Amino acid sequence: MRDVEDPSEPAVGVHALPSPYLLFLGDVTEPGFAKTALGLRDWAGDRCIGEHALPAATVSTGLPRLTPAEAAARGARAMVIGVANQGGVIPPAWVPELLAAIEAGMDLVAGMHRRLRDLAPLREAAARAGVRLHDLRVPPADLPVATGRKRSGRRLLTVGTDCALGKKYTALAIARGLGARGVDATFRASGQTGIMIAGRGIAIDAVVADFAAGAAELLSPDAAPDHLDVIEGQGSLFHPAYAAVSLALLHGSQPDRFVVCHEPGRSHILGVPGYAVPPIEAVIEQTVAAGRLTNPDIRCAGISLNTGRLDAAAAAQVIAETEARLGLPAADPIRGGDAFDRLLDACQG
Amino acid sequence: MRDVEDPSEPAVGVHALPSPYLLFLGDVTEPGFAKTALGLRDWAGDRCIGEHALPAATVSTGLPRLTPAEAAARGARAMVIGVANQGGVIPPAWVPELLAAIEAGMDLVAGMHRRLRDLAPLREAAARAGVRLHDLRVPPADLPVATGRKRSGRRLLTVGTDCALGKKYTALAIARGLGARGVDATFRASGQTGIMIAGRGIAIDAVVADFAAGAAELLSPDAAPDHLDVIEGQGSLFHPAYAAVSLALLHGSQPDRFVVCHEPGRSHILGVPGYAVPPIEAVIEQTVAAGRLTNPDIRCAGISLNTGRLDAAAAAQVIAETEARLGLPAADPIRGGDAFDRLLDACQG
Repeated sequence: MRDVEDPSEPAVGVHALPSPYLLFLGDVTEPGFAKTALGLRDWAGDRCIGEHALPAATVSTGLPRLTPAEAAARGARAMVIGVANQGGVIPPAWVPELLAAIEAGMDLVAGMHRRLRDLAPLREAAARAGVRLHDLRVPPADLPVATGRKRSGRRLLTVGTDCALGKKYTALAIARGLGARGVDATFRASGQTGIMIAGRGIAIDAVVADFAAGAAELLSPDAAPDHLDVIEGQGSLFHPAYAAVSLALLHGSQPDRFVVCHEPGRSHILGVPGYAVPPIEAVIEQTVAAGRLTNPDIRCAGISLNTGRLDAAAAAQVIAETEARLGLPAADPIRGGDAFDRLLDACQG
Repeated sequence: MRDVEDPSEPAVGVHALPSPYLLFLGDVTEPGFAKTALGLRDWAGDRCIGEHALPAATVSTGLPRLTPAEAAARGARAMVIGVANQGGVIPPAWVPELLAAIEAGMDLVAGMHRRLRDLAPLREAAARAGVRLHDLRVPPADLPVATGRKRSGRRLLTVGTDCALGKKYTALAIARGLGARGVDATFRASGQTGIMIAGRGIAIDAVVADFAAGAAELLSPDAAPDHLDVIEGQGSLFHPAYAAVSLALLHGSQPDRFVVCHEPGRSHILGVPGYAVPPIEAVIEQTVAAGRLTNPDIRCAGISLNTGRLDAAAAAQVIAETEARLGLPAADPIRGGDAFDRLLDACQG
């Protein structure tokens, strides 16, 4: 990260966030809107020092409640906006709290479409305090065009039959599971929540198309031969709006292995009338066909099934059926168990 | 197009350029750098009223030499920068000429990376004169996410085995050739030179990845059932940096037919060491595999061969060999002849 005075300048290269974090919950009363804060608690707990909320908030992460000044005194270096708001705006009631964090010397981190830097009071306060405003949906400046050069180290990418069915969760669970086995594995974030969890990354979907594969190359740099980058996927090659994002990430990641994420029972692409969710087989075929351009050794390690809507028996059945049909390990990482162990074996192999 | 006072605001929707044009040649002495102006003369001659150059220029389009004031008096509504410059910058010597065009009441049009609107004297003069600065590499504002909805009318897309081998030229030649047969065909531009020729379009490669397919949908709107949009392709599905641009354009264009553009003898992807130019067969297969997502009826109409480096006999031989091998019409649109007539037949079919 650069040391610059102008908080409105975008980062160069990959976004890198200072930590520990204070999680800002605003006035949230609906746990669904606090998904980001709860995810940070679960996946980056060692980087979260506490939470800060307005009196009206009823949702809590269970972390200590701290004012920005208290958090800063305990070493917090950034306050992360951990709640989504209708329309992605920043309500006026939040502004004094954001200013308090800035004045306590903390950076601000947000993944909303509305940019922190577009609010003059925040921009001016940040410049005065010498802290940065991290708008994770603003891509870093000066991204390179992809070179296609083969990088050292190993890579695994999560891909999907659709959006929003567990590609980030699967990548986190695989990185954590392999880490617990002693594998040198790093989660690599390609979306805003993932970036907050990892502390670094690039929101690939916000990058200009010409540079999207180049951004994906930056995301997983050269590494030791047995190091494994576990890269968070985006979109789906079968999504009529977002397939380009998925392809750029596939080409730039040059993965050796990929895991297909799928939600049994979901029949239609979210929000796109007339488009069926493709069979897992078709996703494997298209991912190999496109991915071998930058890595001829690409192959499918297995399947991650999001069985959250099924009971335990139905989940076990669909996992077993998928394994038998495809001849590949299948598991729901949230349910874990032997199935997930077999999926981890395949990710290592 | 909106009527706005601020010349620095991006267009909404598709870029739309006022014409006729005055072509600005700067101080160009190398015809290769005047490709844009020469292309405009050849493909949009009815929209070009004259040329304007500095005394040092030695290249000419053959159009009447006019000062900006003379051109404006004859009805010119925009001066188009028709020359490329080392590094894409705007040399100081050009600025007085650009200001003269603005003061004569003309819009300015440029496809360079360096934006006209970033030069304060131009921006201020344009605001005073009430004219617009069209930076074609700045995508329009408020582009939509693609819907995948099937549009009325017919569409043909040119695709390539690599970049820079004739996708724009082929689309222009097909649209002109079919127009001469009485077919209701429209060339649709996806890059800056194409936009100047067509007078409208979007530079797809400059669009944020999430919106690139949505931009491609805007490019070829609903049309009469027998209308044919002939869409300029970009990049290649086999280019490790630009495949995402090609895929967004393919999905958003939802073409019924495509023509593969190829340069016989080119063995490696331009500027990307270690990447071979794919066989035409592989491009057909991948284009159908990806394109059928938004148009299940997609198929290859034929092959456009850029035989500029071959003599007539060698060109005829490679055209005949390609037709025989693929069982599809193949032609070099620049050479024309019976082969090109057969390719046009297939584009109509």
